[in-house]
Amino acid sequence: MKINVLDRGYVRLVDHMGGDLAVVNSARVSYAKESKQLTDKDVKLIKFLAREGHMSPFRHATVQLEFYAPLMVARQHWKYVVGSDHTMDAWNEASRRYITIDVENYIPQPLEWRSKPEHSKQGSGEPVDESIGREATERLLRQIEQGIKDYEWALESGIAAEQARLLIPSAYGMYTAYYWTASLQSVSHFLNQRLAHDSQYEIQEYAKAVYELVKPLFPVSLEELLKS
Amino acid sequence: MKINVLDRGYVRLVDHMGGDLAVVNSARVSYAKESKQLTDKDVKLIKFLAREGHMSPFRHATVQLEFYAPLMVARQHWKYVVGSDHTMDAWNEASRRYITIDVENYIPQPLEWRSKPEHSKQGSGEPVDESIGREATERLLRQIEQGIKDYEWALESGIAAEQARLLIPSAYGMYTAYYWTASLQSVSHFLNQRLAHDSQYEIQEYAKAVYELVKPLFPVSLEELLKS
Amino acid sequence: MKINVLDRGYVRLVDHMGGDLAVVNSARVSYAKESKQLTDKDVKLIKFLAREGHMSPFRHATVQLEFYAPLMVARQHWKYVVGSDHTMDAWNEASRRYITIDVENYIPQPLEWRSKPEHSKQGSGEPVDESIGREATERLLRQIEQGIKDYEWALESGIAAEQARLLIPSAYGMYTAYYWTASLQSVSHFLNQRLAHDSQYEIQEYAKAVYELVKPLFPVSLEELLKS
Amino acid sequence: MKINVLDRGYVRLVDHMGGDLAVVNSARVSYAKESKQLTDKDVKLIKFLAREGHMSPFRHATVQLEFYAPLMVARQHWKYVVGSDHTMDAWNEASRRYITIDVENYIPQPLEWRSKPEHSKQGSGEPVDESIGREATERLLRQIEQGIKDYEWALESGIAAEQARLLIPSAYGMYTAYYWTASLQSVSHFLNQRLAHDSQYEIQEYAKAVYELVKPLFPVSLEELLKS
Repeated sequence: MKINVLDRGYVRLVDHMGGDLAVVNSARVSYAKESKQLTDKDVKLIKFLAREGHMSPFRHATVQLEFYAPLMVARQHWKYVVGSDHTMDAWNEASRRYITIDVENYIPQPLEWRSKPEHSKQGSGEPVDESIGREATERLLRQIEQGIKDYEWALESGIAAEQARLLIPSAYGMYTAYYWTASLQSVSHFLNQRLAHDSQYEIQEYAKAVYELVKPLFPVSLEELLKS
Repeated sequence: MKINVLDRGYVRLVDHMGGDLAVVNSARVSYAKESKQLTDKDVKLIKFLAREGHMSPFRHATVQLEFYAPLMVARQHWKYVVGSDHTMDAWNEASRRYITIDVENYIPQPLEWRSKPEHSKQGSGEPVDESIGREATERLLRQIEQGIKDYEWALESGIAAEQARLLIPSAYGMYTAYYWTASLQSVSHFLNQRLAHDSQYEIQEYAKAVYELVKPLFPVSLEELLKS
Repeated sequence: MKINVLDRGYVRLVDHMGGDLAVVNSARVSYAKESKQLTDKDVKLIKFLAREGHMSPFRHATVQLEFYAPLMVARQHWKYVVGSDHTMDAWNEASRRYITIDVENYIPQPLEWRSKPEHSKQGSGEPVDESIGREATERLLRQIEQGIKDYEWALESGIAAEQARLLIPSAYGMYTAYYWTASLQSVSHFLNQRLAHDSQYEIQEYAKAVYELVKPLFPVSLEELLKS
Repeated sequence: MKINVLDRGYVRLVDHMGGDLAVVNSARVSYAKESKQLTDKDVKLIKFLAREGHMSPFRHATVQLEFYAPLMVARQHWKYVVGSDHTMDAWNEASRRYITIDVENYIPQPLEWRSKPEHSKQGSGEPVDESIGREATERLLRQIEQGIKDYEWALESGIAAEQARLLIPSAYGMYTAYYWTASLQSVSHFLNQRLAHDSQYEIQEYAKAVYELVKPLFPVSLEELLKS
């Protein structure tokens, strides 16, 4: 299952292990009992665990997701993974030391450029005037077109791919592909941060896609974890 | 699927995510390709990754196992999990702060007691004389019988379970139950250490059971990881 | 610096890296500035980071502590380390596969035994009657005395230390020594859980000692982290 | 202490905890002994631990480093941290969601551009012809100059910083600042990978600087860890 995001990106559910029952049973090893079907008592237990911050049972369920996202999203996602409580995360990403094809970029349309917010150093506000948006898209397209020409010229001139990539344009807009394997705890922590309104629009869109893909697998647990 | 170990213990495969293909595909995100069936080229890639120590692709596959093991095994296992490169491990264990029933112990039979090795501070050698083995088993049984009486007396006298457990006998022999969720990398690292001949016999038996349960899920990867 | 805990235990501060300033400067890499002295603005920043759950700056400060604690404490501590968000923890512990001397036990005095609480499966209430307490201490002493005799007999009879330890008495009371190296985030998470009133008395005592030792090193950060 | 790297970058040692003695003492908790001065026996122990892969004692020593590096280096470094056995790593990095000043880029000089290797998909070979190198540097400078103009125009036009950064040129060349806190085990693992000859030149230069800064703090341990 795959959900498209932004102009060229997506999130795809590759695989998963466990469900709400895995959380309940992992918690109940303490009581040497195992559920086969989710009962009201199990739902209560999940609520209790999420509310009290007893996170370890939520680490026995895992998901693997594939992302195709602009660098600005991938890098915020990485920082989240390295910079927070990231037990149970694996990450593998395409490398431009080897691949030389298919540079794709995230290119906002003229009406999609956002103004800086009035009362904050961070985030964004209303769309900018259409004339400014139009020029921004044009400048970006021109930069990318020239940059890709430079990059291709460098490759054709025999410069090593690992160094030629310095000529790939746009430090934040190039699409990159990566796999992320994470525990349910880690996924919910990511969603709690990235679904928040002060999170950047582009990464919110990816968080929404992750939510759509993962919610049906752990309906009770994810709801409770996103309350806390 | 469940494999019995020692006199009362077992390891049970609860769930798993991925297989050899997940390793290959996670590694190949670098090349934006995905295999549906394991080819000779895929096998070569797994061999290369294992040999060169490129471990990250082996972290996208996970297993959940349930253990019932004496404390001496559980604690060596914990030390391994905390004490080594333990990304992607979750652990939940029964607690005697709550449970007051069913104290079970690992009790070697008279012929199962091992002598200390001649040239090492660590490990064990040949079986001891049967007469010594017989006395060891008797002493252990007596200690456990008396200890369980003491423990039950304390509970009946109204002492809190969390403190009454000081009277549970045998610091290393009591059986405990726990769930361990780990990546394929972590499992193979555990097996590499615990299948080794200088590892304690009792934990080797658990490692063998883990190997039997996990091998069919990742036949190529596990074989290669255990070479390295 | 060392603080005695329970009848024979202690916590010792071995070393540390960083202080409140390390937190502030690690957070401010975002702004390419570095403080040399803690200002009011820095204190505000620490409050903000703790309140909003931006934990990564608290992981650039570390402490190393040595514990000597009964198994019931050490094992709850381990479970915390394995079972929660435990980035930045290292653990090394004495092993009875090698050491055969100095079995010491935690032995509550007659007035220190606690009753089970009235309205909870967990925790403890008022002290039990002195007569029960006296018998509990006596039974425990007798079990330990006999167990140590059994253990020493086993060693003298040539049974390997790794297996003879099955005869060491008291699954929860034996003292063990270990080093714990952890980030400030990890320490504060441990304190938040273990200073709580529903935590077991014995581990609360260790948490208090950790607090006394670590507080002067990170006075502002620890205060704020323990509010959250 | 600070070492300059490439045209505008550096690595700075911010702080550290422990030394060779911390490794030895953490390993010896097993024997309840503590060294005050490194003896021949201690050196032997470190050699043994490194050779046998007993890594946990090397996690009780930590360092904090500040990097200023092009994105191509920072991102390979991140992948190492996320993608390998990364217990005990903390990471904080400057974010262009907030900062709008000082875009600096890594710009190879005409003689510093490397050709692609003959027999490998990866890495680089001899320098390219000077005429090609000259054109590569010129194209890169032109792209960066234009890109920075675009970026500044976007900021002045009121586009939010978090989105305007799409116009920052060069997906791999922009300098970024970050703090990395890591255990001695983690540092040595990074050095083992990044000092290798098939590692990219630019990241090798950073690895050499890390080695120079960290070597004097753990002279014996680092030497042994880099052999293994």
